[in-house]
Amino acid sequence: MEWYFVASFLTVLTSSQGILTTLSQSNGRYKYDYATVPFLAEVFKLLVASFLLWRECQRSPFPKMTTDWKTVRLFPIPSIIYLIHNNVQFATLMYVDTSTYQIMGNLKIVTTGILFRLFLKRKLSNLQWMAIILLAVGTTTSQVKGCGEASCESLFSAPIQGYMFGTLSACLSALAGVYTEFLMKKNNDSLYWQNVQLYTFGAIFNMARLQLDDFRGGFEKGPWWQRLFNGYTTTTWMVVLNLGSTGLLVSWLMKYADNIVKVYSTSMAMLLTMVLSVFLFNFRPTLQLFLGIIVCTMSLHMYFAPPNMLLDLPPTSKQDPESLIKVPDDRGTDS
Amino acid sequence: MEWYFVASFLTVLTSSQGILTTLSQSNGRYKYDYATVPFLAEVFKLLVASFLLWRECQRSPFPKMTTDWKTVRLFPIPSIIYLIHNNVQFATLMYVDTSTYQIMGNLKIVTTGILFRLFLKRKLSNLQWMAIILLAVGTTTSQVKGCGEASCESLFSAPIQGYMFGTLSACLSALAGVYTEFLMKKNNDSLYWQNVQLYTFGAIFNMARLQLDDFRGGFEKGPWWQRLFNGYTTTTWMVVLNLGSTGLLVSWLMKYADNIVKVYSTSMAMLLTMVLSVFLFNFRPTLQLFLGIIVCTMSLHMYFAPPNMLLDLPPTSKQDPESLIKVPDDRGTDS
Repeated sequence: MEWYFVASFLTVLTSSQGILTTLSQSNGRYKYDYATVPFLAEVFKLLVASFLLWRECQRSPFPKMTTDWKTVRLFPIPSIIYLIHNNVQFATLMYVDTSTYQIMGNLKIVTTGILFRLFLKRKLSNLQWMAIILLAVGTTTSQVKGCGEASCESLFSAPIQGYMFGTLSACLSALAGVYTEFLMKKNNDSLYWQNVQLYTFGAIFNMARLQLDDFRGGFEKGPWWQRLFNGYTTTTWMVVLNLGSTGLLVSWLMKYADNIVKVYSTSMAMLLTMVLSVFLFNFRPTLQLFLGIIVCTMSLHMYFAPPNMLLDLPPTSKQDPESLIKVPDDRGTDS
Repeated sequence: MEWYFVASFLTVLTSSQGILTTLSQSNGRYKYDYATVPFLAEVFKLLVASFLLWRECQRSPFPKMTTDWKTVRLFPIPSIIYLIHNNVQFATLMYVDTSTYQIMGNLKIVTTGILFRLFLKRKLSNLQWMAIILLAVGTTTSQVKGCGEASCESLFSAPIQGYMFGTLSACLSALAGVYTEFLMKKNNDSLYWQNVQLYTFGAIFNMARLQLDDFRGGFEKGPWWQRLFNGYTTTTWMVVLNLGSTGLLVSWLMKYADNIVKVYSTSMAMLLTMVLSVFLFNFRPTLQLFLGIIVCTMSLHMYFAPPNMLLDLPPTSKQDPESLIKVPDDRGTDS
């Protein structure tokens, strides 16, 4: 299975995630407890991974599984990072409005590039760095509030803490991604075995979160397991399955591709969602969406296109623009 | 004199042109007839060029000057194209509002690239084409109306003729530039001799225009030469000298550099003007201005940076994203 096929599939699923979530609301609010969705998605992923691992065990060669505690203990770490991340997100939203928050979210693209370089020691060409910055700029452009739209005066007028938390949040989500890639690639263990470990801890942490919410809420609504499926519709189930599937694709990419590929798929998904929303929820298409799409497409091409395809200059243009300096200032002979 | 030095100087002068023109107004309107400015600028350029040519004639080798009608008759053509262009601009503004008009102005960047390729047979790499498109996108982004700003509903809601005239206008101004480059480079004539011809016709056509305005106005305000300097202040004179100087730099670039270099200088100038306006006329800086500046800077780097500087990949990253396909899906041996 080739990485760009998986990446495109991830783009489609991620953008349908946005659409489905909107559709799963009834007149603008959730009839179900949204916190249950990631938990059930983890359970779904765990079931799928376990099944695939089991099937793999039937076949030979027997899948490689490192089971020593030294390795296993690393698998809860991504969940822990995400847990911290969620709380930082919450803190950020106490200082900035949602549109500023959304804009700052694009910082994640750049921080991922940086941590990718620092922790995974993966080197990028200048052009690829420029592509990553352009991707962030492109997604941000598409989100610029059009004229007439509300709540824009507040842009960049929030207290400094807001921006600090926003940056921290961008670093944490990048860290989680980069750490997962490190985990998946650190040895040749079976992807499914790695997934089983990842999702087991994922399920546990999500369960803990539901439990915590109950404590916070003083069990008013009863224990979470009793109201797990309350208000679930077919669409809600599709949201769960969709979220689960995107998770499975992401860990595939983490093992056989990398974080940058993932960042591109999800960024493109965001633009795709905005375009689909124009048709599905007849949003008014903005000039900035159009511009953002062009910038991101260029960025995609800059990052992934083979260098020779980008730079092959037909001879005439080889002596362009550097040669401008050398153009003879000849006043003597005719040409 | 190196092309990028001239280009940067052109950027500074062009952006101060915008500032000076604003400063030359008294409470938002011109106390002088703006049509006289380009005429006087042409005269200024003609004087400078003649002086430099005269000085060049004192020295040896004697400057090369082609004086046969076959060549000379080509020099009015740019002025003629600009004349048509002005009228098309006028027609465009009958159909679209000024903000849409301003946005469409960025089309000129792309049309210049195209005519540059078609008429001057100059080949560009894919990366350079992408850079040109990004430059246009970047300048457009910086002009996107912020929220709360007026007259944006009308964006892309104008009658089709408006867009057709806008496109035509973009093609004409690109054509004028490309044709001038062709003229300046077609032989090794002295730059100053070429300028003298160019500006003589320029002065004549501008004079004709003033005369025409008088006819249209039925000589109510008296003949143009009598009120040539009416309402002129020191700032107005600076506007004239500034416009003249930018003209001289542009023809230098047309001979020793090219249209793309000119397009970059003037686009960067536009952004510089917007930044300066934030300080001088305390305009509110927008997020889109910031984003546009990043995109244009990247574009500049993509177009002019030497390929190896853009693409030199440290070994580790050479096997970056293409190799993702080749990553061994090894489940047998440990690493």
